[in-house]
Amino acid sequence: MAPNPVTLETINPKVLECEYAVRGEIVTLAQQLQQELKENPGSHPFDEILYCNIGNPQSLGQEPITFFREVLALCDHPTILDRSETQGLFSSDAIERAWQILDQIPGRATGAYSHSQGIKGLRDAIAAGIEARDGFSADPNDIFLTDGASPAVHMMMQLLIRSEKDGILCPIPQYPLYSASITLHGGTLVPYYLDEETGWGLEISELKKQLEAAQSKGITVRALVVINPGNPTGQVLAEANLREIVEFCKIEGLVLLADEVYQENVYVSHKEFHSFKKISRSMGYGEKDISLVSFQSVSKGYYGECGKRGGYMEVTGFSPEIMEQIYKVASVNLCSNISGQILASLVMNPPKVGEESYESYFAEKDGILSSLARRAKTLEDAFNSLEGVTCNKAEGAMYLFPRIQLPQNAIKAAEAAKMAPDAFYARRLLNATGIVVVPGSGFGQVPGTWHFRCTILPQEDKIPAIVSRLTDFHKSFMDEFRG
Amino acid sequence: MAPNPVTLETINPKVLECEYAVRGEIVTLAQQLQQELKENPGSHPFDEILYCNIGNPQSLGQEPITFFREVLALCDHPTILDRSETQGLFSSDAIERAWQILDQIPGRATGAYSHSQGIKGLRDAIAAGIEARDGFSADPNDIFLTDGASPAVHMMMQLLIRSEKDGILCPIPQYPLYSASITLHGGTLVPYYLDEETGWGLEISELKKQLEAAQSKGITVRALVVINPGNPTGQVLAEANLREIVEFCKIEGLVLLADEVYQENVYVSHKEFHSFKKISRSMGYGEKDISLVSFQSVSKGYYGECGKRGGYMEVTGFSPEIMEQIYKVASVNLCSNISGQILASLVMNPPKVGEESYESYFAEKDGILSSLARRAKTLEDAFNSLEGVTCNKAEGAMYLFPRIQLPQNAIKAAEAAKMAPDAFYARRLLNATGIVVVPGSGFGQVPGTWHFRCTILPQEDKIPAIVSRLTDFHKSFMDEFRG
Repeated sequence: MAPNPVTLETINPKVLECEYAVRGEIVTLAQQLQQELKENPGSHPFDEILYCNIGNPQSLGQEPITFFREVLALCDHPTILDRSETQGLFSSDAIERAWQILDQIPGRATGAYSHSQGIKGLRDAIAAGIEARDGFSADPNDIFLTDGASPAVHMMMQLLIRSEKDGILCPIPQYPLYSASITLHGGTLVPYYLDEETGWGLEISELKKQLEAAQSKGITVRALVVINPGNPTGQVLAEANLREIVEFCKIEGLVLLADEVYQENVYVSHKEFHSFKKISRSMGYGEKDISLVSFQSVSKGYYGECGKRGGYMEVTGFSPEIMEQIYKVASVNLCSNISGQILASLVMNPPKVGEESYESYFAEKDGILSSLARRAKTLEDAFNSLEGVTCNKAEGAMYLFPRIQLPQNAIKAAEAAKMAPDAFYARRLLNATGIVVVPGSGFGQVPGTWHFRCTILPQEDKIPAIVSRLTDFHKSFMDEFRG
Repeated sequence: MAPNPVTLETINPKVLECEYAVRGEIVTLAQQLQQELKENPGSHPFDEILYCNIGNPQSLGQEPITFFREVLALCDHPTILDRSETQGLFSSDAIERAWQILDQIPGRATGAYSHSQGIKGLRDAIAAGIEARDGFSADPNDIFLTDGASPAVHMMMQLLIRSEKDGILCPIPQYPLYSASITLHGGTLVPYYLDEETGWGLEISELKKQLEAAQSKGITVRALVVINPGNPTGQVLAEANLREIVEFCKIEGLVLLADEVYQENVYVSHKEFHSFKKISRSMGYGEKDISLVSFQSVSKGYYGECGKRGGYMEVTGFSPEIMEQIYKVASVNLCSNISGQILASLVMNPPKVGEESYESYFAEKDGILSSLARRAKTLEDAFNSLEGVTCNKAEGAMYLFPRIQLPQNAIKAAEAAKMAPDAFYARRLLNATGIVVVPGSGFGQVPGTWHFRCTILPQEDKIPAIVSRLTDFHKSFMDEFRG
C-alpha cells in the first residue's frame, strides 16, 4: 500500500508557515469552554463567552439596518414584490429600491453569475457613492466586487508577489490577514512600526528607513499597506499625513494598498476620514501618477454585515493590460455573491433625506455609532485605570490595543508554559472571565512590549460587568505575579 | 520619478500564464456585441446574445425554486417572521424552516461571521443529507462551507502544491478552473485523456500510463481530479468504473478530488449518480484507507443558484493535523456567505413528502430536470445532423461537447488569423448568430481534434431558433471553406 498521501511534511510549506491569530488557539479554547458551559452550566466562573477577539458586531447583539435587510429579502424573493401584503410588511422605498436593483440585473436574475467584476448597475451606484464621498469622479470599470475585503487583498498579493524577493510594507501592529496573505503567496512582509507614544503615528522617516533596509537586503518593495482607521490600533490618520504617504508612494514607485474598511467608524469630533483617492486627486495626482487600491467591506461601519461577505476594491492607476490580468483572476472565481454585491451598493448609497426610510435609517445608524463611541471611551478609561496598563484612544475602527507591563514572574511563567507572555495573559483572562481577546503577538509589536486587542463591540448593558470582571482579573493576576 | 510600479513584466508570472477560457476572448466579444445591440438595434443579424458558454441557468430564464427563495428571504429579514401578513406571503413550511435555521445560528445573527467551516447546525443538516444520499455516515466536522465550489478547489490546490514538481492528474477535456488553479498555485497539470469513442470513458490504463510518464519526469503526483457527471463532457461514470478509480487512488496513494457538483443532473434512465464517498465506503474503505474530497455547489443541479455562491467540500481520510491546516486556511477568509451556507443546507435537505411545499417543490424540480433532458437530446440530435460533426450524449451535467471536422481551408484561415481553429469557428458562430460557445481548446482535447462546449440551458421555446440558426451558420461556414 502507498504511504499516507498527505502529511505535515508533504503539504505546501507556505500553508504550514501561515498564522492567523484572530481565530487562533485562544479562540479554539473559547469554543471548547462554550461547549462545556452548554453541557455543564456552572462549570466555569462565568456564564457566557464574550467574543471580543473579532470585529463581528452582530454576533454580540448589534441589529442589522432594517432598510438594507428589507431590500435584500425582496431581491431574494422578487415574486412577492407585486403582492399587496408586501406593502404592509416593507417600507415603500425599500420596495422601490429592490425594483431599481432588479432592473439593473440582466433578466432580473439574482441567482445568476454576474459579470466577473460584479453587476454593472451596482458598480455604477458604488462609483456614484464614492464620488459623493470624495468629490472626485469614480469609474465603475475600476470597481471589483468581492466576497468581503479579504479576497480582494489576496487578489492583489497574488498579482504583485513573484517570490520571497518581493516585499510588502505593512504596519506593525497589523491586521494578520496581511501577514497571512503575504506568507501564503510566498512574499516578504517588510514591517514599519507605528509609534505608540504619538497615538500610533505613521512616520515617513520610519517608512523610508524600513524601505531602505529591505532594499539593502535585495528585496524589491512592491507596495505599501496602510490601514486607516487603524486595525488593531484605532488611530485615524490626519490629512497632512495622508498627503505625505501619497507622495512617498509616488516617489518610491509603490502601489498604495489602502485598507479603508473602517471609513464609517470615526468616534472623535476632531478627526475625519479622508480616502486616499480623494487625497491623491486633491494633490493633482491622477491615473498616471499613482497606483492605488482602496478596499471597502460591508462587514464594518455601522452596518456590520460580516456574514453577507460583501465588499469591493477600487483599482486606479494601473494600465489596461494589468486591469485585464486582474479581471482574469476575478473570473476564475466567476463572481462574488449577489446579495453581498447588492449590500455593497446599499452601504455606498443609503436612504437619502426625504425618503420614507431615512429617519429610521438615520436613527439606527446614529444609535450604533454613538453607542460605539461611548463604549470605546468607557473601555479605554477602564484599561487606563489598570496597574501597568496604558491604552491609546480608539479614534476609529472597532478596537482598543492596550499595552501591559507584565511582571517578570509572569514572563517567566509564560516561558515555562512555552507561550508568548501576552498569550499567557489572554489565556488566563479567558479562563477567569470568559472574555476573548487576541494577544498582541498575533499582530506584531515592538519587541519586549506586550499588548492585546479587544473589540469595543459588546452591547452597552454588558460593559459594566466586563469592566468589573476585567478589573478583578487583572488585579489578581498582578497580585499573583508581582513577586 | 519612479518607474510605473506594475507592468506585465513585473507581475507574478503565474497570473500571466493562467488561462480561463469560459470567460475568455469570445465572451468579451459577446459583451461588446450586446452593448452594440443595445445602443443600435438591428446592427447585427440577430437580436440577442445567447450565452451558452457557461452553466448559468438563471441567466437564461430558469426560475429559482420557490421554497429555497422563501427561506432565504425570511432569514435575511427575520423581523417579519412574526407578522400576520407573512403567513399570506410565504408557505408555512418555509416559515418553519426559517425558524429552525435561525435557531441554529448563535444569537440568530445571520449578519455575523460564522465558524470558519460554516454554521454547525447547517453542517449537521448537510451531513444528514449526505447520509440519506449515500447510506453511510457523514461527519459535520468534515464539512467546509465555501462560496461555491471554486474556492474549495483552490484551497485544496494550495494545500497540496509545493512547486512545479507536484502534479495533479486532471481529465482532458477538463473544466478550466482546474488548470487555472494549478497554474496559479505553481503546480503541474498531469493530463489523462478521456476516450471520446467510448462516450468519454475514463480508462485506468490511461491513468496509469500518465502517472508513470509524470513520475519518470520527476513529478510527484499528489491527487487525481475526477469530474462526475463530466464537465464539459457530460458522461456519468458507471459504478464499476468508480470502484476502479478508488482502488487506483488507494494503491497509488493519491488524494481523490471528486467534483460532484452535477450530482443532481442525470438525464438517462440507465445511469445513476454514485458519490465516491458511497463507493469507497461500500468497498469497505474508511478514513484510514483513502483521502477523499467531494465538492458540491448550489450553482448546479435543478437549483442553479450560481449567484448565491454556496457550496461545500466534504474532506475525509486526512489526519487531524492536516484538518487543522485546512481550518486555518479557511479562517484567513473568515467564513463563506451565510445565505450561501443556508442554501447549501437546503439543497441537501429539500422539502419532504407530506410537507406543505413538497408538491410545488417537486413539480418545479421535475419540470426543470425533464426539460433539461429534452433540451440535451434535441441539441445532441441537431449537432449530430451537421456535416462533419459528431456529438456524444449528455448523460448528465449541463453541456454538450461536439467534435467538428474542420475543412483544411478553415484551419488555414484560422492560422492566418492567429487563432485556434475551434476558436475561429466559435467567433464566426457568435458574429453570425449571437450564440456564445467555448472553443474546445479552452478545455484541452486530443491534438488535431476540434470541439466546442455548448450548454443545454437556453429555455425550450428558444431551442428551435437556436437549432435553425446553428444549422444555417454551419452550412454556410462549411460551404465557404470546403474548398
